[in-house]
Amino acid sequence: MKTYTASITVTLRRAILDVQGKAVENALHSLHMPALGNVRIGKHIELDVQAPDRESANDLVMDACKKLLSNPVMEDFSIHLEEKSAGVPA
Amino acid sequence: MKTYTASITVTLRRAILDVQGKAVENALHSLHMPALGNVRIGKHIELDVQAPDRESANDLVMDACKKLLSNPVMEDFSIHLEEKSAGVPA
Repeated sequence: MKTYTASITVTLRRAILDVQGKAVENALHSLHMPALGNVRIGKHIELDVQAPDRESANDLVMDACKKLLSNPVMEDFSIHLEEKSAGVPA
Repeated sequence: MKTYTASITVTLRRAILDVQGKAVENALHSLHMPALGNVRIGKHIELDVQAPDRESANDLVMDACKKLLSNPVMEDFSIHLEEKSAGVPA
């Protein structure tokens, strides 16, 4: 059994209006930062996975994303897996 | 003036209890996924920056992170910048 660290990014689909992003964009402009725009806000989730290999770790995380972590109607997600080396403390 | 796309990840510092992550972890375990644990939840922010070069783009985004997008007492952030190529529509 190996331990992998998964970084998951969940973002609203492009076609869907991001009201939170729009609010942040307006706030940035009020703070005199007109050079920043087109703000989109999503979630970043990090978790540890116990699995025999990378494929099954990826399958487990994919399953969790579909069932709980994202709303497949409105959101997309991407997964990045990294093996945790034994020498580094969590 | 060039356009850069910045991906910002804002995460709670390790020392701070992540109650949202804990709730998600419990939910995953209830869904029969005991292999997943140590869940931490953060924010993912994407935005476009107009700047003459990469350094000033990075400075602008860093400034926005410190002033608005993150809480420097409790959160860390990382910035990833990519130049937008003119041929690709936004």
